[in-house]
Amino acid sequence: MSETSKQELREAISEIRRLLAQRTAEPVIAFVEPLHPSDLADLVEHLDAEERLTLLEIVPAPLASEALAEMEEEEHPAELLAQMEPARIAELVEELADDDAADLIGDLEPDEQERILDSVPASEEIRELLEYPEESAGGIMTREMVVVRAQDTAHETIESLREHANDREDLYTVFVVDNRDRLKGVVTLRDLVLAAPTTLILDMLEQPVAVVPVDMDQEEVGKILSRYNLASIGVVDDSGKLVGSITFDDVIDVVEAETTEDILRFASVSDEEQLRGTTLGAIRSRLPWLIVNSLTLSVAALVVWAYRDTIEQLVMLAAVMPVVAGLGGNAGTQALAVTIRRIALSDETQTERWSAVGKELVVGLVNGLVIGGLIAVAASLIPGTDPAFGIVVMIAMWGNLIVASTLGAFFPIVLERIGTDPAVASSIFVTTFTDLFGFLLLLGLASAFLL
Amino acid sequence: MSETSKQELREAISEIRRLLAQRTAEPVIAFVEPLHPSDLADLVEHLDAEERLTLLEIVPAPLASEALAEMEEEEHPAELLAQMEPARIAELVEELADDDAADLIGDLEPDEQERILDSVPASEEIRELLEYPEESAGGIMTREMVVVRAQDTAHETIESLREHANDREDLYTVFVVDNRDRLKGVVTLRDLVLAAPTTLILDMLEQPVAVVPVDMDQEEVGKILSRYNLASIGVVDDSGKLVGSITFDDVIDVVEAETTEDILRFASVSDEEQLRGTTLGAIRSRLPWLIVNSLTLSVAALVVWAYRDTIEQLVMLAAVMPVVAGLGGNAGTQALAVTIRRIALSDETQTERWSAVGKELVVGLVNGLVIGGLIAVAASLIPGTDPAFGIVVMIAMWGNLIVASTLGAFFPIVLERIGTDPAVASSIFVTTFTDLFGFLLLLGLASAFLL
Repeated sequence: MSETSKQELREAISEIRRLLAQRTAEPVIAFVEPLHPSDLADLVEHLDAEERLTLLEIVPAPLASEALAEMEEEEHPAELLAQMEPARIAELVEELADDDAADLIGDLEPDEQERILDSVPASEEIRELLEYPEESAGGIMTREMVVVRAQDTAHETIESLREHANDREDLYTVFVVDNRDRLKGVVTLRDLVLAAPTTLILDMLEQPVAVVPVDMDQEEVGKILSRYNLASIGVVDDSGKLVGSITFDDVIDVVEAETTEDILRFASVSDEEQLRGTTLGAIRSRLPWLIVNSLTLSVAALVVWAYRDTIEQLVMLAAVMPVVAGLGGNAGTQALAVTIRRIALSDETQTERWSAVGKELVVGLVNGLVIGGLIAVAASLIPGTDPAFGIVVMIAMWGNLIVASTLGAFFPIVLERIGTDPAVASSIFVTTFTDLFGFLLLLGLASAFLL
Repeated sequence: MSETSKQELREAISEIRRLLAQRTAEPVIAFVEPLHPSDLADLVEHLDAEERLTLLEIVPAPLASEALAEMEEEEHPAELLAQMEPARIAELVEELADDDAADLIGDLEPDEQERILDSVPASEEIRELLEYPEESAGGIMTREMVVVRAQDTAHETIESLREHANDREDLYTVFVVDNRDRLKGVVTLRDLVLAAPTTLILDMLEQPVAVVPVDMDQEEVGKILSRYNLASIGVVDDSGKLVGSITFDDVIDVVEAETTEDILRFASVSDEEQLRGTTLGAIRSRLPWLIVNSLTLSVAALVVWAYRDTIEQLVMLAAVMPVVAGLGGNAGTQALAVTIRRIALSDETQTERWSAVGKELVVGLVNGLVIGGLIAVAASLIPGTDPAFGIVVMIAMWGNLIVASTLGAFFPIVLERIGTDPAVASSIFVTTFTDLFGFLLLLGLASAFLL
């Protein structure tokens, strides 16, 4: 966000606070009505709990409901909704697209979900969507797409579109089904606009570039939609029946969420942590990994302890230890980051993927030689140092960078192969291993050749 | 990619290789013609240089050109194009959307660009697009959008759409301009379909939710399009003249590219490195940061060296050093990852952003106390250890985790404030600092209280 828009945001927050404090609805409504729901959502997120409730109770339902849908999940828009009167809840939920309503209500506890859904007259579609796992195709799809039959004409289809346009979420693709609701093909809105009115849908019918099964993981759905540059994609069940559709805007949200998950996992933060969540949430999400890391690092400590006599005799080793371990950790993290993204983005055969390990081995060989050489030269410049000390440090550094680089590629590929997220805590394991191996190499070589 | 589709890919590669080896065009064309350009691109990426060229020379131009556009940049589709005959180059480039052509040709050296553009009869639009910086709105926009005037009717607009549909890249939004090409508003394709034929565009005209200036960074464009769930967005120059439009599919690509950049930078890999690039490229992109890290770690080594007498007297300190430093590094990396994503995704005022530092301070206080306590208990279980040793380790660990966590939030916020990417090499600096500070605290306390 630019400095100007931050300034505008600050000003809008003060203004809405001032208007809310006056306790008359009209000026508030006049102020928020020209806003886009996303901008109103942003504004709401900067208000305190009481202001949020007051504001969203007086804003007209179409705008208020969209603003709730656009709020960040971690700002708990669902709980805000749950605090309102049953009649207002019904009014807001009915304005929402079915997928947005399901997303919102799905964040509440089961008994709260029931209470809210009981206030909404036509809650059947939302209840059905809530049955699907949150991160599956079913969990992000809408049931409000345009569905026609092959024997309809272009004109009839456009007429039906006109009638239903306001309660259809996906207007990018027209889905064509048979008598048993099985997906037969698609017609793009574009083709429909361009067709002569009497053209039969049958004659414009195209095979969909791709469809996704209702239980597919949302990340996979995102990859397919992005691969084929589709504005929306059909979702089918086991029997080929069309059950919903997913639009590009939901996919952009998925790509952002999955990336955040990857970066957090990579850095050993559990993916339940919300970016702007509570301090308690942050403590809970990170402490378990720190405990795991305490245990893994204790093994590295044992290695050092085993060589305590060596260190006592040559204390300079204690000074070099963190350099060897730290550079190994850095080189390992570099290889990890490249490999994790490579796995996330590229379609590769296993052979091609394993070739990454070979490449990283060579990278480690070369970078290790350069860095090891540099450190050896630096060490030899210290007056009174045994030249053999420089050589031991160089070999330890070189060896550790080779292992770090190779392991950084190897580890996530193995994790993915056994069906685990390649990013999970990989940095903890790689850095602990490079600590361990670096110490073994440095102290082992030193005790063999320097004492 | 699932195991099944990997199997299919492997089979398709063998089959196309077999067909290419037979040196007759028809069976090859018959095999690739039903493929989506993205799938053909995938196939091409798994062939060797000679096979790629042979294949793309015989595939019909509309499919071959799209496949080139869909190939990963790091597979060098532009160089593949440059190897073809001038007549074929012209044929392929003319089939491409202007933005895809500019992206492709923009990857070549300037003299190669000239040579290719000279083969293409109508290269003016592509030349214009090449003038904009690659990562700006101008660099990703298309000029092939639908532009009408306010006095046109819905019917006329649809007629003109029919005529030009095949050479228009953005068919999601109809842009309305005045006599001097300044953007006056938009009409969605949806509204156009739903309108009576004689309705004037003027009467359907809506203010665009957002427009972006031609020099805006592509990441910012992505945020805006995703914030407002737009399928496409207009691009204007300083005078308000409409110069192009950007569609959602380009934005999904931008989100993916920017995230890769963030993860790589976070792990101290320069963003020139391509995920499946050459080994030499990987060496070059990582070595400079390893050299920087050698220097920063040397400072940590100096701290240890300064306390060499302390270590000689109590060698167990050398074993505890990597545990204190490693956990500090891990806690710092956790705070970094959360803060970097928070900066990337949230619209926050400075005050709210700084509150992250306070939150991380508390996280460090609590997690540091737990981890410090655990390690102190573990240390006291070792027979013959002075209880004071456990207390010194605990305080060092606690202090280091507080600093790590706070710095992990503070550092990227400061980097962003001074206009640098908050992710750049932040992990190197935070882990070096936690090494340094951890050693100072541990060894300083030990020399003061244990000897």
